[in-house]
Amino acid sequence: MANFFSIFTITNLLILSLALNLSLVMRVYLNSEKHGQPKVVDVEGPATQRTLLSVSSSSGEEDIDKVINLNHGDPTMYEKYWMMMGDKTTVVIPGWHSMSYFSDVKNLCWFLEPQLAMQIIKLHKAVGNAVTEGRHIVIGTGSSQLIIAALFALSPADGSEPMSVVSTAPFYSSYPVMSTYLKSGLFNWAGDARSFNKEGPYIEFITSPNNPDGFFRSSTVNRTGGMLVHDLAYYWPQYTPISLPADHDLSLFTFSKANGHAGTRIGWALVKDEEVAKRMIKFIELNTIGVSRDSQLRAAKILEVMTNTSVDSSGESFFDISHHLMAERWRLLRAAVNNSRRFSLPEFAPGFCHFFQKETMPQPAFAWLKCEDDEVEDCESFLRGQKILTRGGSKFGVSAKYVRISMVDKDINFSLFLKRLSKLQ
Amino acid sequence: MANFFSIFTITNLLILSLALNLSLVMRVYLNSEKHGQPKVVDVEGPATQRTLLSVSSSSGEEDIDKVINLNHGDPTMYEKYWMMMGDKTTVVIPGWHSMSYFSDVKNLCWFLEPQLAMQIIKLHKAVGNAVTEGRHIVIGTGSSQLIIAALFALSPADGSEPMSVVSTAPFYSSYPVMSTYLKSGLFNWAGDARSFNKEGPYIEFITSPNNPDGFFRSSTVNRTGGMLVHDLAYYWPQYTPISLPADHDLSLFTFSKANGHAGTRIGWALVKDEEVAKRMIKFIELNTIGVSRDSQLRAAKILEVMTNTSVDSSGESFFDISHHLMAERWRLLRAAVNNSRRFSLPEFAPGFCHFFQKETMPQPAFAWLKCEDDEVEDCESFLRGQKILTRGGSKFGVSAKYVRISMVDKDINFSLFLKRLSKLQ
Repeated sequence: MANFFSIFTITNLLILSLALNLSLVMRVYLNSEKHGQPKVVDVEGPATQRTLLSVSSSSGEEDIDKVINLNHGDPTMYEKYWMMMGDKTTVVIPGWHSMSYFSDVKNLCWFLEPQLAMQIIKLHKAVGNAVTEGRHIVIGTGSSQLIIAALFALSPADGSEPMSVVSTAPFYSSYPVMSTYLKSGLFNWAGDARSFNKEGPYIEFITSPNNPDGFFRSSTVNRTGGMLVHDLAYYWPQYTPISLPADHDLSLFTFSKANGHAGTRIGWALVKDEEVAKRMIKFIELNTIGVSRDSQLRAAKILEVMTNTSVDSSGESFFDISHHLMAERWRLLRAAVNNSRRFSLPEFAPGFCHFFQKETMPQPAFAWLKCEDDEVEDCESFLRGQKILTRGGSKFGVSAKYVRISMVDKDINFSLFLKRLSKLQ
Repeated sequence: MANFFSIFTITNLLILSLALNLSLVMRVYLNSEKHGQPKVVDVEGPATQRTLLSVSSSSGEEDIDKVINLNHGDPTMYEKYWMMMGDKTTVVIPGWHSMSYFSDVKNLCWFLEPQLAMQIIKLHKAVGNAVTEGRHIVIGTGSSQLIIAALFALSPADGSEPMSVVSTAPFYSSYPVMSTYLKSGLFNWAGDARSFNKEGPYIEFITSPNNPDGFFRSSTVNRTGGMLVHDLAYYWPQYTPISLPADHDLSLFTFSKANGHAGTRIGWALVKDEEVAKRMIKFIELNTIGVSRDSQLRAAKILEVMTNTSVDSSGESFFDISHHLMAERWRLLRAAVNNSRRFSLPEFAPGFCHFFQKETMPQPAFAWLKCEDDEVEDCESFLRGQKILTRGGSKFGVSAKYVRISMVDKDINFSLFLKRLSKLQ
């Protein structure tokens, strides 16, 4: 009965997915008929249509040999939404545009495109997830660059020893490697914030909601001399209730997780202290001499649509639709997991979301799955045996019985994953 | 007479510039009339036309209070060429394209767009400035990121002390700061290659033609254990005779200096050794999780036009036109400098250029000017007094009597610079 239920919902999902794909293909074709051929060269048009069609036609059959890679948080789930929006986020960049290194010489962050700065502020205002007043916006080539920029900015250039960098386990698996790979004399990874007891200044990363487990977080160490970096990559309404606007000294956001455009390497920091902002800007200047201007122009256009669809009543709200998709995925995953004693998932409490003006549940971009079987000590290896690639708990500073699984991959991969999970029961 | 000559040529240049601007504005308007209004949103259209018009209307008058910033090598000179090319390099990127982190999972460099890789190879073949066979292409967020990636890749992770990094003075002013700003335990700046006498392995940067002075360069240290990084940012026909295809272990190129698109942060490395390529790729993965895909798509389109116009006979060859512009600027600069004993410039020998199939002169992207006056010890300060911002010799490891001056700025700035230089005689 349990097995029947799981397969039934997966089949339903596949039919829904097929219908959505077909409607999108129709829409793409209708749009191109209505608007005629583009006047300028379209860099990827036909390939995208092929991809769409191939996903549609193959999504009804399982490829038993296919390796499903849910190790990375590659947010390809969002492609469908942006297809549905058609030309609204298309950018046209003529060859002579944005050639100079400089975006805005009057801004402290001279490589920040003014229109992107404006759209970042508008989006935060519309969503209510961050205070932007009295903040400097520092743009980065993804939030990875901003994480290292923050470490550089918060560590004194003439310190007698490297600044300690901590985060509470399970922590984002990149923090340790980002703090150590250059063997910097400025900063160094000092491990789990819970066991950190060294005197003196330190930097604590607070990821909230947390990657990998999705829980809300606040500072663990709470000592004088602590400098906090709030990594708010997942503080968006599709993942978590927006309880209040974040009001920290240094907050990080990233384009990839907010809207799914991971290939456009854009992140931003909201920084209260001017000197810290200056040091972060200096780091990015030395590291990459600014941030690609064409990517920023594209980013501005995408954020504008996110804001506009949130406030109008067209029924195309990015956050409404994404929230719905994430809710459906979490419902299906919990149904698959709850039918078995082999796995477990975190349990979340609902919270009032000021964006949706109602109570919502956390539904993180990653599932933090635990293998409950006594025989399975290494959940990542166990799932790899099922051709499901995940990221094991040890990389996040905890037991290998846990794995992190991307919840934002394409429908076809998510469906296959659920089907294989159901078969393990 | 000398003064009359200088002013006469500057006036001529300004008239020519004005005529070119007007013809470009006409072309932009005619193109937009012919093609009608674009179907999709143009991110900067009206602003660009305003800029064009304002440059045209003000280029005939000198603003005596204007600070001319020739400190950076901001290659805005090239804007006109790309305007002239109209829609040929326009990219249209729909909102759902290039969303994944991954460009090409089959490539060692998984974040390299296949079409950009193809265009890089085609351009090198057309120009004849680098061997690409047997090389891995590693793409970077500008060549700055690749410089640090090379340092990371060539330094052993478990070395007992940091690897020494050297270059022959005058060296690119960023090498020292890039090698030291993170206080890395992997590598450290060890100064002028000429005075380097430490035993053991080392990394030598060879910039050829050299930034700042434009001369050809080869290795200075020439010892066992040396690893050479050839920075070939300026090895393009508009700057120097292309004597033969570069055939090194590790060569760096950058989009900004090849074609003027500094705002599109793209550089590339040609790397012989697979392990070195892998380490560079790892660095970029940790630093920025790849390189913006939209910037790469734009870059591919621009390189394609550079290659195509080099081999067809349309009279629109990027390298022909750029070479002509650089030759004219150098002619005017030398005329201004030779009329005085206060300044001097490097003297170059001509060389056979296999690209142009004739003898050509080096005409670097920077002028390496020396203040010959006995009273002027600090040439940068002296010129700053004339509201001309340059970069002083001490930043390049030599005497402050030298300054580096950008030769690739906008016409208006270059003309004002020449006029002020002429007045100093």
